[in-house]
Amino acid sequence: MKRLAVLGSTGSIGTSTLALVRAHPDRFRVVALAAGRNLDLLCRQIEEHRPAMVSVTANGDAELLAAEFPEIEIAAGPDGLERVATHEMAEMVVTALVGAAGLPPTMAAIGARKDIALANKETLVIAGDLVMAATANAGVQLLPVDSEHAALHQLLGGRPAAAVARLILTASGGPFRSWKRSRMERATVEEALAHPTWRMGPKISVDSATMMNKGLEIIEAHHLFAMPEDRIDVVIHPQSLVHSLVAHTDGTLLAQLSVNDMRLPILYALGWPDRLDPPVETLDLAAVGRLDFSPPDPDRFPALDLARAALRAGGEMPAVLNAANEVAVETFLRGHCPFGRIAATIDAVMNTWSNRNHPLVSVEQAMAADAEARHMAITALGNTTTPSRVPSS
Amino acid sequence: MKRLAVLGSTGSIGTSTLALVRAHPDRFRVVALAAGRNLDLLCRQIEEHRPAMVSVTANGDAELLAAEFPEIEIAAGPDGLERVATHEMAEMVVTALVGAAGLPPTMAAIGARKDIALANKETLVIAGDLVMAATANAGVQLLPVDSEHAALHQLLGGRPAAAVARLILTASGGPFRSWKRSRMERATVEEALAHPTWRMGPKISVDSATMMNKGLEIIEAHHLFAMPEDRIDVVIHPQSLVHSLVAHTDGTLLAQLSVNDMRLPILYALGWPDRLDPPVETLDLAAVGRLDFSPPDPDRFPALDLARAALRAGGEMPAVLNAANEVAVETFLRGHCPFGRIAATIDAVMNTWSNRNHPLVSVEQAMAADAEARHMAITALGNTTTPSRVPSS
Repeated sequence: MKRLAVLGSTGSIGTSTLALVRAHPDRFRVVALAAGRNLDLLCRQIEEHRPAMVSVTANGDAELLAAEFPEIEIAAGPDGLERVATHEMAEMVVTALVGAAGLPPTMAAIGARKDIALANKETLVIAGDLVMAATANAGVQLLPVDSEHAALHQLLGGRPAAAVARLILTASGGPFRSWKRSRMERATVEEALAHPTWRMGPKISVDSATMMNKGLEIIEAHHLFAMPEDRIDVVIHPQSLVHSLVAHTDGTLLAQLSVNDMRLPILYALGWPDRLDPPVETLDLAAVGRLDFSPPDPDRFPALDLARAALRAGGEMPAVLNAANEVAVETFLRGHCPFGRIAATIDAVMNTWSNRNHPLVSVEQAMAADAEARHMAITALGNTTTPSRVPSS
Repeated sequence: MKRLAVLGSTGSIGTSTLALVRAHPDRFRVVALAAGRNLDLLCRQIEEHRPAMVSVTANGDAELLAAEFPEIEIAAGPDGLERVATHEMAEMVVTALVGAAGLPPTMAAIGARKDIALANKETLVIAGDLVMAATANAGVQLLPVDSEHAALHQLLGGRPAAAVARLILTASGGPFRSWKRSRMERATVEEALAHPTWRMGPKISVDSATMMNKGLEIIEAHHLFAMPEDRIDVVIHPQSLVHSLVAHTDGTLLAQLSVNDMRLPILYALGWPDRLDPPVETLDLAAVGRLDFSPPDPDRFPALDLARAALRAGGEMPAVLNAANEVAVETFLRGHCPFGRIAATIDAVMNTWSNRNHPLVSVEQAMAADAEARHMAITALGNTTTPSRVPSS
């Protein structure tokens, strides 16, 4: 019986996590939940899982919950989030927050010696060296929930990545895989959210459309598996059934495949080192019939090279990349900038960044760079006037 | 430095093995060779590798060699083969003989506590239980050289197959993958030997055309990995780049991929547990572009179900299957029976076999069944009058 705290319980990963807990009541118990503002769903989750503690974003919401559930400890804000992440009953913390906000509670959970099921890749993008050092220091497991990194974790089987030749991340190519650049520039929010193979939250769906998601995953893989940037490849695989590959030094590739359902990598992280009964059928390759692969196009998807440049630059630059991306994606999702402006904004902010703190020595430095880069991105986007919500054809 | 004895040094696997020894002079040394009747090639191999001992099939050939190489120990026949297989200087024996003839020297090598690189799948088909028991008893490694089983060996990584849900062997489908049954019935030798993806010897090429090769591999996988027949699947994969897969209990598939070059599984077996620099480039999936999969067709390829039936029957039946197949393939290769007659002959011999020795308790029982089944197959084929060498269109 593993006791879980779930950060971001009402999001896509959070709800899938709780569904898996429901399917494996003999293996998992939820002891603490942190959510944002979706109180209706959170109340249903509390009624089902009866956690010992719950935290929400707003004080007002916390007061409503406290009246509804007097027997449960209720908290709010960053302090409440950290209390959930470090809850004494929790053995593993599922970090399913979106964006840079996931870093402080994840570091707090590691400091409290909790194993981490990491669904918040920004944590590693922003402060990967610090997070990996803290993980080693605390002697806890850091299990990736990204399908690609869960695949690599299985394929490496505990061996250091340094012993293999290359890591190869697969990428669906997103909804704009075969679009012309001119059409991509004026893509609508609806078009960007229409991911062909994965059902995910809006931020990560847009990141898939720009392929910044894959860029962030290169940085994530670098930290998780201590692999140099130039030995991490990306290959386009539109069916999203091969989740990643490892190239051995003897010319062998090992690949991990499954149906594209995020519950599988979540279950892998929750259950590791055991493999638990899945909620879906095993992939039937004969029924699938065909798997396609092609090289990524750096011209139409500049986010890939921006992420590689940020990783090579080191210091604050990956945090700056991520902050500018978060601001630009949010602006795009609100209909206030065109799709093509997302990468251009990141490029502009990175180009003017001085990258003084190199290497980063504290989470505070990373969060300060994050805040400053957000301001710069907002300023850069202020120059934009074209709305993105052009009607789709 | 690993000292090797090579049984079948002038065949396809044997010559590839010696090429790998040439490429890794710091890792491997050839101490003994056994070959058939290709004296020209054997003499060149002796000059290059300077083994301590050589054996050939015929006494007359042995006398010629003894005159040519007075400093080398020369032998002939089954006794000479066994002396190569148990040579005191050898640490590993590469068993690359074709057919049932590989069983006695392989058992002798295991008895002499040599590690085995097994390229003779008939050894396991005929007497798998005895071979695996002898291997465990001697405490030696049995490393499969078949690309499919080398793939499974890597994917299992030393874990017992019982811990996984299924083993999935890929099959190219051979040259007749998309042929109509009526056309297959009258296929010529040239057509059967024209394998689309692998360059191999004639016997195994015909076995690929009937898909008996995959049937034998099901039996081989059963013994190597202690997996029940009903948990070993076959999927058609015409490109022969995915060499096999393992299905885990959590819905995950792990696959092994490489360019289709037999030197890779040979090198894996020779070098295990190390992975050595390969003689070929790592597979580039983006350049390959596409991998196809489909279910096998039991109507056009009855050999698959014959092999499964033999494995389920146990006892002498797999040896009978193999013997009837060897006779029928040889008859087809000589142009004395049509392609469609191969499976029919195996079916007829299996149907009249009483399968008295169940389980097999000795290699002698297996070889006696082999001999008797050969006679029955020859008799069954005597009823055939149609020559196979119809002109190809």
